[in-house]
Amino acid sequence: MLSEFDLITKYFTKPISNASLGIGDDCALLMPTPGTQMAISTDMLVSGTHFFPDTDPAQLGHKSLAVNLSDLAAMGADPVAFTLALALPRAEETWLKPFSEGMFSLANLFQCELIGGDTTKGPLNICITVFGQIPLGQAIRRDNARHGDDIWISGTIGDARLALAHCRRETALNDDEFSKVLPRLQMPMPRVALGKALRKIASAALDLSDGLLGDLTHILNASKVGATVNIDALPVSSILARQPEDFRMLCALGGGDDYELCFTAPVSKRSRVLEASDKTGIPVTRVGFIESTPGLRLRNNNGELQTFSHHSFDHFLTTEK
Amino acid sequence: MLSEFDLITKYFTKPISNASLGIGDDCALLMPTPGTQMAISTDMLVSGTHFFPDTDPAQLGHKSLAVNLSDLAAMGADPVAFTLALALPRAEETWLKPFSEGMFSLANLFQCELIGGDTTKGPLNICITVFGQIPLGQAIRRDNARHGDDIWISGTIGDARLALAHCRRETALNDDEFSKVLPRLQMPMPRVALGKALRKIASAALDLSDGLLGDLTHILNASKVGATVNIDALPVSSILARQPEDFRMLCALGGGDDYELCFTAPVSKRSRVLEASDKTGIPVTRVGFIESTPGLRLRNNNGELQTFSHHSFDHFLTTEK
Repeated sequence: MLSEFDLITKYFTKPISNASLGIGDDCALLMPTPGTQMAISTDMLVSGTHFFPDTDPAQLGHKSLAVNLSDLAAMGADPVAFTLALALPRAEETWLKPFSEGMFSLANLFQCELIGGDTTKGPLNICITVFGQIPLGQAIRRDNARHGDDIWISGTIGDARLALAHCRRETALNDDEFSKVLPRLQMPMPRVALGKALRKIASAALDLSDGLLGDLTHILNASKVGATVNIDALPVSSILARQPEDFRMLCALGGGDDYELCFTAPVSKRSRVLEASDKTGIPVTRVGFIESTPGLRLRNNNGELQTFSHHSFDHFLTTEK
Repeated sequence: MLSEFDLITKYFTKPISNASLGIGDDCALLMPTPGTQMAISTDMLVSGTHFFPDTDPAQLGHKSLAVNLSDLAAMGADPVAFTLALALPRAEETWLKPFSEGMFSLANLFQCELIGGDTTKGPLNICITVFGQIPLGQAIRRDNARHGDDIWISGTIGDARLALAHCRRETALNDDEFSKVLPRLQMPMPRVALGKALRKIASAALDLSDGLLGDLTHILNASKVGATVNIDALPVSSILARQPEDFRMLCALGGGDDYELCFTAPVSKRSRVLEASDKTGIPVTRVGFIESTPGLRLRNNNGELQTFSHHSFDHFLTTEK
């Protein structure tokens, strides 16, 4: 059986170049580039809460880091490094090897290096803290959306929730449909390039991890504004578009886990938003606008007010989105 | 019942002054003082592995942060900030209130502020990542111990293991003895002031979390040297000193959780080590010296070679220290 130190050496120790000191001492050492701020985010993924216990370890390695990189993307930060704390029931190489490979293949894509961590025995729990850097004053926060700003969403939303619905037998997709939406749940791709391209363009941003209704409300509350969203303008995949309206809206408005960006930008910057989208190859869709009246109003293409009872995901209040 | 956002606001959101942006956005923002490096360490504490499930939450809050601050101390870093990721079976205020109070009372002592985190449902798991800063080039690493250097230990070692032994009925302490050693297990005090005072004096350092034998070996391996330790010189409390020799050595050599510092320094810096000790009020004891011959040799006051079969704690190999 592998010891704690052996498994760290074998699966988690890679050459570093961003950090001054990596794994193997009491602390790692980082020196941010002068003129930048360090962006820091941490996410904990728990077996049974965030993923099925039998989730493919390579996909889990990818997703654990992806959800953290997504927070950097939402801030406009450049990934630099991360730490990994891992509780495992057993040190099984058949699990550790694909898990570390899935994680490092995403990490390498963004030149984000593992600089430290902890491994211990316990119920499966993956806690990653990620470090990025942003030129001073250019972080895209949540509290700067202004009356009149457009609201934008990257990519399409709701497919991760649709895949989950199929797994839970709440709906039945055919094999072709399921194979197309499942990667959205299992292998989300953080929108790092778009986040960086939106520096000095977006007025506020966050990543959609808990669902549009709940997440957009965070921007509205932090910025002390309200908004109207056109539910017919929400970007959804052709597969989700074929679902009945109520269920489609549950997925698009209440479904998390797509890790798309939701951001606001002044009307005067529409062309620069579209340039950022072109440059990064990540589509963006205008779905509404910021208003001074508090609250979030949903309307359809005819301007009619819509209501939905679905709520954003809260780990301690609900078991259903 | 408290929602995830309510409990973060109620128990974990405090004013910040070191960070540019704290809890409430996708990332926190930190800007290290120019001319410093950032030291980063992460530790995960799991119920049943690192602490008894019924551990007093205030002490657990203290200890969770203390073990992380101890890593900063071992590097000579100044605490700045930390993130907290918390998996909880239930959001119980009777647990959260004392836990957060225990954690913040230690955090405030070191002006180390909570800047972000995550809360989720799951088996009790506490993962903290801590950030410190050190003037460029002054970090006390593990890989710089040199032939001839003294080996020093702060405070006394073995009492945390002694308290654990009593809890496990491996030994029986009287009430007075138990009440004196228990705080070493429950409320370790990170040696931050000493670590900072040892900058430019110590050649290598780490904190004793897994036991002297195993931890000192990390310095020897990283520095490619060996050492001789005089077991009769090990600083132990009067309570541990009264225990039978074999058990005393198990506690002093193999017992972790005391979070004292073990460090090396050139003989020429003995007086400066003692000044650092005086200045910080933290006693230090010289217990051996570094040699070029690899391996760790234990001798007694008469110079006789000693052997012990106890091993450092490894979460995946042993159930006993």
